Amino acid sequence: MEAMNHNSTFYSDMATNLESTHSQVVPITLFVALLCVCLVIGHFLEEYPWLNESICAILIGFVVGTIILCTSKLKSSRLLRFSEELFFIYLLPPIIFNAGFQVKKKQFFHNFFPIMLFGITGVLISTSIVAAGCWWLFPKLGFGGLTISEYLSIGTIFSSTDTVCTLQVLSQDETPLLYSLVFGEGVVNDATSVVLFNAVQKINAETLNGQTALRIFLDFLYLFTTSTLLGVSAGLVTAYILRGLYVGRHSSVREIALMVLVAYLSYMLAELFELSGILTVFFAGVLMSHYSWHNVTESSRITTRYAFATFSFIAETFIFLYVGMDALDYEKWKMSMLSFWTKMGLYSTVMLLILIGRVAFVFPLSIISNYMHRSGGESTKISKQHQLVIWWAGLMRGAVSVALAFKQFTHSGVTLDPTNATMITTTIVIVLFSTIVFGFLTKPLVDHLLPATNSNAVRNTGDPGSPKEDMTLPLLSVEESASENLSRAKDNLSMLMDRPVYTIHSYWRRFDTAYMRPIFGGPCSDENDSSC
Amino acid sequence: MEAMNHNSTFYSDMATNLESTHSQVVPITLFVALLCVCLVIGHFLEEYPWLNESICAILIGFVVGTIILCTSKLKSSRLLRFSEELFFIYLLPPIIFNAGFQVKKKQFFHNFFPIMLFGITGVLISTSIVAAGCWWLFPKLGFGGLTISEYLSIGTIFSSTDTVCTLQVLSQDETPLLYSLVFGEGVVNDATSVVLFNAVQKINAETLNGQTALRIFLDFLYLFTTSTLLGVSAGLVTAYILRGLYVGRHSSVREIALMVLVAYLSYMLAELFELSGILTVFFAGVLMSHYSWHNVTESSRITTRYAFATFSFIAETFIFLYVGMDALDYEKWKMSMLSFWTKMGLYSTVMLLILIGRVAFVFPLSIISNYMHRSGGESTKISKQHQLVIWWAGLMRGAVSVALAFKQFTHSGVTLDPTNATMITTTIVIVLFSTIVFGFLTKPLVDHLLPATNSNAVRNTGDPGSPKEDMTLPLLSVEESASENLSRAKDNLSMLMDRPVYTIHSYWRRFDTAYMRPIFGGPCSDENDSSC
Repeated sequence: MEAMNHNSTFYSDMATNLESTHSQVVPITLFVALLCVCLVIGHFLEEYPWLNESICAILIGFVVGTIILCTSKLKSSRLLRFSEELFFIYLLPPIIFNAGFQVKKKQFFHNFFPIMLFGITGVLISTSIVAAGCWWLFPKLGFGGLTISEYLSIGTIFSSTDTVCTLQVLSQDETPLLYSLVFGEGVVNDATSVVLFNAVQKINAETLNGQTALRIFLDFLYLFTTSTLLGVSAGLVTAYILRGLYVGRHSSVREIALMVLVAYLSYMLAELFELSGILTVFFAGVLMSHYSWHNVTESSRITTRYAFATFSFIAETFIFLYVGMDALDYEKWKMSMLSFWTKMGLYSTVMLLILIGRVAFVFPLSIISNYMHRSGGESTKISKQHQLVIWWAGLMRGAVSVALAFKQFTHSGVTLDPTNATMITTTIVIVLFSTIVFGFLTKPLVDHLLPATNSNAVRNTGDPGSPKEDMTLPLLSVEESASENLSRAKDNLSMLMDRPVYTIHSYWRRFDTAYMRPIFGGPCSDENDSSC
Repeated sequence: MEAMNHNSTFYSDMATNLESTHSQVVPITLFVALLCVCLVIGHFLEEYPWLNESICAILIGFVVGTIILCTSKLKSSRLLRFSEELFFIYLLPPIIFNAGFQVKKKQFFHNFFPIMLFGITGVLISTSIVAAGCWWLFPKLGFGGLTISEYLSIGTIFSSTDTVCTLQVLSQDETPLLYSLVFGEGVVNDATSVVLFNAVQKINAETLNGQTALRIFLDFLYLFTTSTLLGVSAGLVTAYILRGLYVGRHSSVREIALMVLVAYLSYMLAELFELSGILTVFFAGVLMSHYSWHNVTESSRITTRYAFATFSFIAETFIFLYVGMDALDYEKWKMSMLSFWTKMGLYSTVMLLILIGRVAFVFPLSIISNYMHRSGGESTKISKQHQLVIWWAGLMRGAVSVALAFKQFTHSGVTLDPTNATMITTTIVIVLFSTIVFGFLTKPLVDHLLPATNSNAVRNTGDPGSPKEDMTLPLLSVEESASENLSRAKDNLSMLMDRPVYTIHSYWRRFDTAYMRPIFGGPCSDENDSSC
C-alpha cells in the first residue's frame, strides 16, 4: 500500500486534494480490472497447460506496462512503485499460509528427509555457487563494485525457486513422490532463501572467512528453529482455543476469523522479532489443518479451504501481473550504463550459474536420499527422470527473487545507483526469461521424461476424469480421512518397516495419537476413544 | 494503509531504515492481536446480549488507547492515524457487499417501499433538522465560524445510523417485518448519507436557497440512480460470465475470485466516477446472491457465504476498535479551546437534535407506510411498538459518522483548526455515548416493547434452538429454496392480492422468472423448464 501513497504524494503536489484520493483509486481499479481479465483468460488457457496463468499474468502485465509507458511518454510503466513491504506484509503471507494449510501432510512428512535435504542444503549449495561465480565472473565482464555481502545476497536471490509452473503439469496422482518433492522443495526453498537472505544482511565483513561463514550458519539455524517453533505454537494455540471454547456452540464466522487472524499474527510476530515469517506461517498453516481444522464446523472447513486458496491465487496473480508491468521500468533501464553486450553477458552468466547451482545439489542429494531409503523399495527411490524434473522445476525464478532484489538494491523501490539498477533489471530479466522460456518448455519436457504409461506411480487410483480441478487446486482434493490413513499405514507397514526415516515418522504418529490429538483435536484413529 | 505510512515516515526520520519497516509491523501486529482478543471475548459475551461486540471492541480500544497514551507520555493514543481512505477503500466495501450478499432478498424487496421511505426520505428529513438546529443553536452556545456547507455536512454526518447493535437483539424469526425494516433502513441509510454528503460537498453557496436545495436533490438523485445501475450491471455481468464460461468445468477458486474481484471493481469504478461505491457494491451483492450464486459449485456457495461474512465481521470489529482508541486523541482534545460547559452544551445539542431528527420522520413515515399497505392485514402494519424500536435502532452512530467527520474536518486525519478539532471530538463523543449508553439500553427496551409472547410475527416457524448462530449470522441461515419460495408465495397470494406494493413485486417476479433467470441463472420455479 505504501506504493500507492508514494504515488498519491507525488500526484497531490500538482493536483488538488480531491484528486489525491483518485490517484489511489485509479491504480487499484486498474489492477483489479486486470486481475479479472487474467482470471477469465486463465480459464480459457486451462486447455493449454504449457501456457499457465503465471505466464499469462506476466504477459498481460507486460502489455499494459507498454501501453502505460507509451501514454505517459516514457515516464513510467508502473502504476505502483514496488514496495517490498506490500509484498512481504500483504501478498506473501496468504500464499505461504495456504501452502502450509493445503499441503498433503502425510506425503509431506513421509518425504520429510529428502524435502529438507533439497530445500535447505540445496539452497546453501546453490547460494555458494551463484555467489562465488558472480564474485569471480562479474569483474571479468567489466561489472564490479559489489561487496561480499551483496554477492552473497545475489546468491540467495537467485536460489529461491518458483515451482508453481511445474506443479501445474505434474499429476499428484500419477507421480505422488515427485509431486510431493517438487512442492515440498518449493515451500522450504522459499523459506530458506528468505531466512538466509536475512542472515546474510547482518554481516558487514569485507572478506569471507570461516568465522563469518559459521556465524551465518548459526544465525540461519537459530532463525530456522525459532520461526518453526513460533509457527507450531500459533497452530497449537488456535487448535486449543477452538477446541476448548467452542464446545457446543459453533460460530463459523468466529472460527474462520480466529484462524486467519492468529495465522497472520504469527507472521507479524515473526517479522517483529526478526525471524522468518514465511517459515512461521507455513508451520502455522500445517498445524492448523492438522488439528484446528477438525475442531470446526463443516461450513468452516469448506470455507477455509477455498477462501485461503482463492486469496493465495489472487495474491500470486497480482505478483506476476506486477512483475510483467515492472519489466518496462524505463528509468532503471536507462540508469544502468552498461553496453548491450555486457548486459547480455551478465544475464547469461547468472542463468548459467543458476543451472550449475542446481546441478550441483539435485543429483548428489538425490543419491544421498536414495541411499537413506535404500531398503524402501522402488516407490521411494528418486529415479534419474525424476531427478531431471526436480532439477528443471527449480530453474524458474519468481516473485520472491524480485522482492529480495528490491529489498537489497533499492530503497522503497527507488535507486539512483547504476550498479543497483543493473542488479534490479538483471533480476527482472532472469525472472521473465526463466518463467516464460523454461515455463513453455516444461510441459514437453515432463511429457518426454514421464510418459503416462511409464510413470513410477505408487498408486494409480486417482480420478483421471477431473484433471482440470486438480490442476487449479492441486492439493485440495485429497485430504485423507482417518480410517484411510490407518488402513494405508497398515498396508504399507511391512514394506516400510526397515526404513530409518519411517521409524521417526512412526514414533511421531504414535505420540500424535496418544497425546496431541486428545488435547488439540484431530481425526481419531482409535474408535474406542470416548473423547473423540 | 496510508495511516501506517504516515507513521512510518514519522518514525523513519529518527530511526534507521531497518526500523522503518518495523514501524509498520508494530501497529499491524498490535491490531491483529487486539482483533483476536475481541474475538475470544466476544465469544464469551454471547451470553450477555446487552454487551455486544461493538461495545466490547470500543472498550478494548479505549483501554489500549489509554495504555498507549500513558506509555507515550501523552503524545499519542493511536497506532494508526485515521485515514478515510483506509476506511472507504478497504474496510467499508466488504461490510456493505456482505450486507447486500446476505440480505434476505424476499423480505427486502417485499418491504421495499417502507425501507426506501425510511432510508431515503428519513435521511433527508433528519439532515435538514440536524443542520438547521446546529445552525440555529451553535452560535448561541458561543461556537460559530461554520459555513452553510459545513452545517449541511454535520447534518449528514449525524444522520447516518449504525444498526448492528439493535439487530443483535432482534430476532429475525419472531419479528421478520421489524428485522427487515431495521436492517433495510440501516443499509439504505448508510448509502444515502454518504451520497448526500458527497452532494453537499459540491455546493459553495454562502446561503441556502431553493435553487441550491434543488441542485443538491438532483445531484443526489443522479448519484443514486447511476450508482444503483452500475452495481446491478456488475452483478449481472458476473452472473453471465459464471453461467456462460463455466459450463461443465467449475473451479471454485476462480468462481470465488471472480465474484470478489468484480464486486470490488464495481466499488472502485463508482468511486472513480464520483458515484456512491456503497450503493453500487450493495446492489452488486444483492444481484450476485440472486443470480451468480446459483451458477457456482456447492463449495463456492458455502465459501462465499462464510468468507464474506467473516471479512465483514473483521472489518467491523477493526473499525470499532479504532474508534475506541481514537477517543483519546489528546491533541484534538487540547486543540478545541472551549470551556467544559460549552463542550457539554454542544454534545447535548447534537444528541437532542439526533433524537428529534428521528422522531420527525419515523412516526410520520410509518403512518404513510401503513396507509399504503392499508389492505395488507396486520402482518404488514408497523405497530406503535415497532415504530418505537425503529426510532431507537437508528439512534446509534457508528463508523460511517466518524469517517465522514474525518473527511469533512481533517486533512488525512490531521487538523490544526480548533473549530474542526471540536467537530471531530464531538463526533467521537456522540458515537461513543450512543453506542455504549443506548447500546446497553437496547436489550431491556426491546424486551419491554416486544415480549416474546406478544410479537406480531407473520410466521413463528424459526428454530428457536439455535439463537446463538442466528445472532452472529443473522442473515445466513434462511436462504429460501425455490420451492419454498413458490409455496409460500401461493399461500400468501390471496392475502396479498389487494396490496398495491405487492403488484409491483409480483410483476417483477414474473419478469425475473421469464427473462432474467434463463440468462443469468438462479433457482427455477418452473420444474418443466429444460434450461434449468
